[in-house]
Amino acid sequence: MIPIDDTPLCRDGKVLILAYDHGLEHGPVDFEGLDGSEDPARTFEAATHPAVTSIAVQKGLAEAYYPSYEDDVNLLLKLNGTSNLWMGEPDTAVNCTVDYAAEIGASSVGFTVYGGSNHEIEMVEEFRDAQEAARANDLPVVMWSYPRGQGLKNDTAPSTISYAARLALELGADVAKVKYPGSKAAMEHAVRSAGKTKVVMSGGSKTSDRDFLSSVKDVIDAGGKGLAVGRNVWQREDPTHILDALEQVIFEESSVADALEYADAQQ
Amino acid sequence: MIPIDDTPLCRDGKVLILAYDHGLEHGPVDFEGLDGSEDPARTFEAATHPAVTSIAVQKGLAEAYYPSYEDDVNLLLKLNGTSNLWMGEPDTAVNCTVDYAAEIGASSVGFTVYGGSNHEIEMVEEFRDAQEAARANDLPVVMWSYPRGQGLKNDTAPSTISYAARLALELGADVAKVKYPGSKAAMEHAVRSAGKTKVVMSGGSKTSDRDFLSSVKDVIDAGGKGLAVGRNVWQREDPTHILDALEQVIFEESSVADALEYADAQQ
Amino acid sequence: MIPIDDTPLCRDGKVLILAYDHGLEHGPVDFEGLDGSEDPARTFEAATHPAVTSIAVQKGLAEAYYPSYEDDVNLLLKLNGTSNLWMGEPDTAVNCTVDYAAEIGASSVGFTVYGGSNHEIEMVEEFRDAQEAARANDLPVVMWSYPRGQGLKNDTAPSTISYAARLALELGADVAKVKYPGSKAAMEHAVRSAGKTKVVMSGGSKTSDRDFLSSVKDVIDAGGKGLAVGRNVWQREDPTHILDALEQVIFEESSVADALEYADAQQ
Amino acid sequence: MIPIDDTPLCRDGKVLILAYDHGLEHGPVDFEGLDGSEDPARTFEAATHPAVTSIAVQKGLAEAYYPSYEDDVNLLLKLNGTSNLWMGEPDTAVNCTVDYAAEIGASSVGFTVYGGSNHEIEMVEEFRDAQEAARANDLPVVMWSYPRGQGLKNDTAPSTISYAARLALELGADVAKVKYPGSKAAMEHAVRSAGKTKVVMSGGSKTSDRDFLSSVKDVIDAGGKGLAVGRNVWQREDPTHILDALEQVIFEESSVADALEYADAQQ
Amino acid sequence: MIPIDDTPLCRDGKVLILAYDHGLEHGPVDFEGLDGSEDPARTFEAATHPAVTSIAVQKGLAEAYYPSYEDDVNLLLKLNGTSNLWMGEPDTAVNCTVDYAAEIGASSVGFTVYGGSNHEIEMVEEFRDAQEAARANDLPVVMWSYPRGQGLKNDTAPSTISYAARLALELGADVAKVKYPGSKAAMEHAVRSAGKTKVVMSGGSKTSDRDFLSSVKDVIDAGGKGLAVGRNVWQREDPTHILDALEQVIFEESSVADALEYADAQQ
Repeated sequence: MIPIDDTPLCRDGKVLILAYDHGLEHGPVDFEGLDGSEDPARTFEAATHPAVTSIAVQKGLAEAYYPSYEDDVNLLLKLNGTSNLWMGEPDTAVNCTVDYAAEIGASSVGFTVYGGSNHEIEMVEEFRDAQEAARANDLPVVMWSYPRGQGLKNDTAPSTISYAARLALELGADVAKVKYPGSKAAMEHAVRSAGKTKVVMSGGSKTSDRDFLSSVKDVIDAGGKGLAVGRNVWQREDPTHILDALEQVIFEESSVADALEYADAQQ
Repeated sequence: MIPIDDTPLCRDGKVLILAYDHGLEHGPVDFEGLDGSEDPARTFEAATHPAVTSIAVQKGLAEAYYPSYEDDVNLLLKLNGTSNLWMGEPDTAVNCTVDYAAEIGASSVGFTVYGGSNHEIEMVEEFRDAQEAARANDLPVVMWSYPRGQGLKNDTAPSTISYAARLALELGADVAKVKYPGSKAAMEHAVRSAGKTKVVMSGGSKTSDRDFLSSVKDVIDAGGKGLAVGRNVWQREDPTHILDALEQVIFEESSVADALEYADAQQ
Repeated sequence: MIPIDDTPLCRDGKVLILAYDHGLEHGPVDFEGLDGSEDPARTFEAATHPAVTSIAVQKGLAEAYYPSYEDDVNLLLKLNGTSNLWMGEPDTAVNCTVDYAAEIGASSVGFTVYGGSNHEIEMVEEFRDAQEAARANDLPVVMWSYPRGQGLKNDTAPSTISYAARLALELGADVAKVKYPGSKAAMEHAVRSAGKTKVVMSGGSKTSDRDFLSSVKDVIDAGGKGLAVGRNVWQREDPTHILDALEQVIFEESSVADALEYADAQQ
Repeated sequence: MIPIDDTPLCRDGKVLILAYDHGLEHGPVDFEGLDGSEDPARTFEAATHPAVTSIAVQKGLAEAYYPSYEDDVNLLLKLNGTSNLWMGEPDTAVNCTVDYAAEIGASSVGFTVYGGSNHEIEMVEEFRDAQEAARANDLPVVMWSYPRGQGLKNDTAPSTISYAARLALELGADVAKVKYPGSKAAMEHAVRSAGKTKVVMSGGSKTSDRDFLSSVKDVIDAGGKGLAVGRNVWQREDPTHILDALEQVIFEESSVADALEYADAQQ
Repeated sequence: MIPIDDTPLCRDGKVLILAYDHGLEHGPVDFEGLDGSEDPARTFEAATHPAVTSIAVQKGLAEAYYPSYEDDVNLLLKLNGTSNLWMGEPDTAVNCTVDYAAEIGASSVGFTVYGGSNHEIEMVEEFRDAQEAARANDLPVVMWSYPRGQGLKNDTAPSTISYAARLALELGADVAKVKYPGSKAAMEHAVRSAGKTKVVMSGGSKTSDRDFLSSVKDVIDAGGKGLAVGRNVWQREDPTHILDALEQVIFEESSVADALEYADAQQ
């Protein structure tokens, strides 16, 4: 962990990542609910919203679409990922080098580590290479810290999420992206475990505006520094509305009610 | 994916690859139907047809035969491949480096990825190395995107082909070579899933002129950018006739009937 | 093994390492007994005590907290480690390179080797790389020498600990960190087996002051050169008291009673 | 495959390799029939016969004996090989680099690939490295192409040998060393399958002069370019006699009867 | 194999290696019979005897003790080795690079290869790297050639030892260290199989002076070039006496009786 508040990944020390790696991780099935959501341009467009501190995509999307958005969007290049056709123990392919990420304009990088998988050791060593290369390129590092696999019975138990957050600190990530551990108290424990590493919540599947914003509010109240959100933004007909509300909750630390009222007023 | 329309792989933004790696992948048995088809010179000769934007061969054929054709044929060097004597989970050996491919005259490279195989992760990481080396050499990258292995029950299901096309986009291929998913609608879905990455159909085993051209026509109508064809060309007594017809369907967007009429008139 | 008495790791030829890698190895559960013990700053603070010759932490803690303590604390960077979510044969990920450790201020490095694990050979080869890189950077090397895994029935048997100590000598470690073999005589044998390599005891879980100091005294009397201690320091409300006493036992070679009397007088 | 007729491996476009790697592959048991045959100097001496275009040995024999013969013998360094103590799936160790082979005087290199083994992919990738390094050193490459292992029921079936020959062409070998497929017609098919890559027969175990020469004659008549022979030369009391006869069959394309008559006359 | 008679490893073309890697390979249990034998200084002292052409130790012992003996002892650095806690198929960790061995004063290197183990191929490839690096550093290479593992029923059968000796020659070792095959005739066969590679006997566990010297005498009479001896020297109260006798048998080619008489006279 190094100071990253002055990098494009942060705004007032907070982070809102718009994640759009679902085409690799889940496949086109994730785009079925909403026609056009398979088009990366639509999500890059959403990422121009001032609430979004960075868009997280794989190398191929960055190469093809980022050149049209480089003045308006910050690029977090996700360095590894795997299709859900994979049937083995949780693992993921490193499909982009840090040097190439920097070359195509990334201002931060992301990396998944599945603690507890029987590929944990290999993944942590790959993370080491990426983390040290990121340091050499002055790029912040976000760890998708998702304990999973043979060693885990419940991957969102509070103790698991606190361990996930601590792993990110111990291994040198600047931001830990973790799942929601079920309560504000559990999130507080995860945040304390992460020390100086910023904790952001992983957004999960689509829910109602109010429920979603409430969980984000809990994260902020618990000392979390923001959110990495995907489907809850780009699976909506109007990504702007929810981004307006998220901006209030995360950066203005508004209540959920005030945030929704504000967002409604922008329509 | 990067812009490739100005490279030798494309003609008017379309692609027609004449594939001749069957000697490695299937063995000499593929040449049995037609005496002389085992001679690479015969297929290099066919590749001089203006409809063919590139010939796809393995390193050994390129070294031995391309020097005689380098003024008239564009070389797509297929970087990996495996004999069908292999009995393990789908996998493939990287038998040529990108630097060497460039040295012997390749103007684009090809790479197989078997999504869903228990070698998927290793293959994707090998693809990363090839893709980034190709970028350094300004060579377009074609992915033979063939989900296969323990994770797949049906490797031509529409959802599988759409996922195959998306994988090519996400991982940074410029062209996705996929199998035909069975209908024009399914091909349209695959093309949409691939975003800016061009989708071309993999030709498959030899069929009648009309049936073959109809499936190619469907691909073009679905937004596909062309074809990678092997046995349907070089297993025919007269490769020129079918190439004349393919040229009409792909580059002139003619109907199948018009294309056949045109081709017949060239005899 | 090379002469290290003039390096920051030693004081009068003795060693007292304050180990704080438990967040990685055990997870936040280790911090439960004492609120605030999860905060690395608290343990870095404790490490400013003159008895502590170095603090041992993983890369991430070093990056985040060491810059504030570099004038008052010596950094031993622990180069490998693994979460206890790992269910396989004992193994550990190399999560920091020696060059990067040197860059962020380490004045020595630590490395775990599990002799007898079915990963022993791989770990010893990783140790080789680290040890030779440490030589090139003039950094002393501490081996956490913990025989463990399929080859071991009892990992604190005297013969096991003596073998552990000898492995450190044979493989080129400057300091061998071993578990207490149960008696002073057994520790003497381990020390003799280690030749010129310094032997330090691994502290283990928290016990009473008197019991803990007595085992440390045994180690010193047996020719051991000190201690690597974690929970027995930072899990106490007042780390200073036990560090005062340890300073007497290790560097002044006082009796346990005198050491405790001295420490009490400092309060 | 590149043009190699002007290299020391060839004489009039033909090849006669005297192979003496049996000490590694089979062990000293192969030398039992004939006292003194274990002495490499004896076979190097035989290799001074003008019929022999190169001697094929492992690195150790080349280092120890080639300096005495470098004016009179051409060295084909066999880059991989394995003892028959090995009980696993067919595989082989790369025991010499191409650069070192060049340094000790090799004018060509040899490499075994077991197509169909579950080590096929690894071997083909090792072959790639050797082949490209050989190109950089301007050294012809001979592939010992021996399909073998889990994928093979019969490793001398005509279809297997034709596939073996084709693999050598596809992967970039200049010469394919294959077993005799049982008939001249089958050898012709293998030769056609190999395209511009020269096919030579692997000599096999010792037989009578007439039987052996007849099979060599079949190979030449089938378009093969020669022979790699071991035991049929150095297990004989008088290697010169059979080499005289082979010279007639291979380079003069004599009949077997004429070749034997010629050889007898030289005694 | 290259000429090594002018290197420190040899005296009059013969070799006497004092091996002291037992602390790694067997553990401290080997030192139990004789107090003080665990101290490397005692064996380094013994190695100053003029009969000893080199001492063989692991990296750690060389680093710690060789600086005090570099004027009086030649260092053979043993590059690999493994604890006997290892329970898998025979294998060994490469724990020192050749470059580092040269840096700390080695004038030759040693390397174990277990032919027939299911790690044979990996070990032979590691040997290749070491052997070629040794050539670049002008260091002779001694192979501990010990067929062992799944492929072996009897690891001292004459045919096994002859194969072991031949492997050393084929793979490029200058000296083959093999076990005694049980008879002088068998040793002669092994020596013939090794060609120009020098064969030395591996000393084995401690026996009586006369029995030990008789087996050494057999080796010399069989054409062997010496001995690698460990426990038969440093487990004795007086290493000098047996070294005096060995000097006579190996370098003066005395009878056992004369050698013992000479040694007794030196007391």
